[in-house]
Amino acid sequence: MQTRYIGSAALGRMVRRRGIPEFLRGLAGYIRDDYLRWDAFEKTPRLASHTPSGVIELMPATDGRLYAFKYVNGHPGNAALGLPTVMAFGVLADVATGYPLLLSEMTLLTALRTAATSALAASAMVRAGARTMALIGNGAQSEFQVLAFHAMLGVDQIRAYDVDVRATHRLIANLAGVAGLRVLPAASVEDAVRGADILTTATADKRRAAVLVRQQVPTGAHINAIGGDCPGKTELDPDVLRDARIIVEFEPQTRVEGEIQQLAPDVPVAALSDVLAQRASGRGSDAEITIFDSVGFALEDYSALRYIADLDRAEPESRELDLVPELRDPRNLYAALGVG
Amino acid sequence: MQTRYIGSAALGRMVRRRGIPEFLRGLAGYIRDDYLRWDAFEKTPRLASHTPSGVIELMPATDGRLYAFKYVNGHPGNAALGLPTVMAFGVLADVATGYPLLLSEMTLLTALRTAATSALAASAMVRAGARTMALIGNGAQSEFQVLAFHAMLGVDQIRAYDVDVRATHRLIANLAGVAGLRVLPAASVEDAVRGADILTTATADKRRAAVLVRQQVPTGAHINAIGGDCPGKTELDPDVLRDARIIVEFEPQTRVEGEIQQLAPDVPVAALSDVLAQRASGRGSDAEITIFDSVGFALEDYSALRYIADLDRAEPESRELDLVPELRDPRNLYAALGVG
Repeated sequence: MQTRYIGSAALGRMVRRRGIPEFLRGLAGYIRDDYLRWDAFEKTPRLASHTPSGVIELMPATDGRLYAFKYVNGHPGNAALGLPTVMAFGVLADVATGYPLLLSEMTLLTALRTAATSALAASAMVRAGARTMALIGNGAQSEFQVLAFHAMLGVDQIRAYDVDVRATHRLIANLAGVAGLRVLPAASVEDAVRGADILTTATADKRRAAVLVRQQVPTGAHINAIGGDCPGKTELDPDVLRDARIIVEFEPQTRVEGEIQQLAPDVPVAALSDVLAQRASGRGSDAEITIFDSVGFALEDYSALRYIADLDRAEPESRELDLVPELRDPRNLYAALGVG
Repeated sequence: MQTRYIGSAALGRMVRRRGIPEFLRGLAGYIRDDYLRWDAFEKTPRLASHTPSGVIELMPATDGRLYAFKYVNGHPGNAALGLPTVMAFGVLADVATGYPLLLSEMTLLTALRTAATSALAASAMVRAGARTMALIGNGAQSEFQVLAFHAMLGVDQIRAYDVDVRATHRLIANLAGVAGLRVLPAASVEDAVRGADILTTATADKRRAAVLVRQQVPTGAHINAIGGDCPGKTELDPDVLRDARIIVEFEPQTRVEGEIQQLAPDVPVAALSDVLAQRASGRGSDAEITIFDSVGFALEDYSALRYIADLDRAEPESRELDLVPELRDPRNLYAALGVG
């Protein structure tokens, strides 16, 4: 037995084989299934190491059968060095033995699972008939968000805005070939959000920003807030949060890392797991503003690894890695050195 | 740029190229250097997930320049399934960017670093002229312990005891070719420890055991206690600990996981970092009993990864892994999927 390895090239092949829409829908199905098993999971806030240049985090999750963890960094200065701001990889292990079954790249997979989670949450929160999305922040995550909302909710009109117009141009060029989708550049946040059903904020600045203020939010809009995801990094003006229906992934983590870090610790929020299980409502009325305050939770990485492990079993793209020595006698570790 | 990968085959080549004694001495030098920089490290107790079958742990450590973490399990039932009880792998990353520089097997490397740490601690704690070691527990870790004490302290007579005599036979057979070393089987713990200068306990039972009681410990002996390393798993009778000089790796972790979990939380212990820096004494008198209450600390894994990364740069044995996608434009993550 060896550990299976899915690098970024193999993951690209897995996604292209199915097409992004089918891959995202399948992934969202796994995430949904795992959120519906919420009580089966041991939940731990991520273990973060902060430095002046960025953060490195370990995110474990287990349901007592499989154990997953993700390594992920966030370094705003990386683009200037030719590296992604966020890089990730992860491992799926067998709880019964501790054996690492699968090692995978998760830079691409995290972007895919974040988008699938956003669209999954939105599908329980948007007004019926939502078709138009404003996309504020057109960075590395933006194509994935658009494609997930297109594939899973039928959103077909995007108004994209970024402080860097080149980012918007890249987004539009990358998605030019997607049938039935119109991505239009917006001149400003105001221009992007006017009349939009869904507002996705995905900016990257590591500071308290207010890319969206209350009077810009259309009545009944759903806000998919994915950029604010660590202490001191928020995107929404606190006024946007007041009186809105706020859904979170794992409350103890979101209170520290999400947009709601700006609010009193007793402001009520609902859990995505409860909304998906229909124990809580994702929307109270057509006029209500709903917010998915997404920070990314380890369960979603567990789901993503479980998903690609299953896909790989059906149609293999992985290869083997000697991450653990194979021993004829498991007590004879010394023999694995091949000395003597 | 890609991540370097050192699997168990490559690590075996690295060790054989230098020979185990030289590899262990070099490794101990790196561990010593890092313990002497103790205050430079961000120290975190390991993040453990316990289940009925065993434990899976993540152990991070960073000095603000490099970040290391290790994944390690402990599953006492694994041998019956043909798997090692303890399996591990780890990553060394660049703190400035978060980039994962090196992924390595650490099943073998953990055994090597544990032995190097034991011998390093002992070198500051044993009586002058110590040459004889009793080895209680002759499992996967035992050859490494013997070779480290032989290479670093000149210990040349081993009396080995295990409840399973086949384990002792395996140990003796594996080390039969080592020049200047005598490994003799002992009929009992009493037989093994009689007159020994050093007592190494390395048993694997996940429970409170007392493989060593007070009247068995020779005056002036040094006890290298490596088997008791998690809550509820100890090897020494509490009486052995009383009045002994106890040295630990990272006190907050050892109070929970080490032999001293059996003592009141204010019983004084000294830090290995202080002993190595000569801020604390490893031994007060020739008659004193000294104990290295080793549980394994993340700093040692950091050192081990830093060591093999340096060895690999000088004489490459690693290969490349596409753990992170290489992007022409770091903001254009979508392009790495290769679609459209």
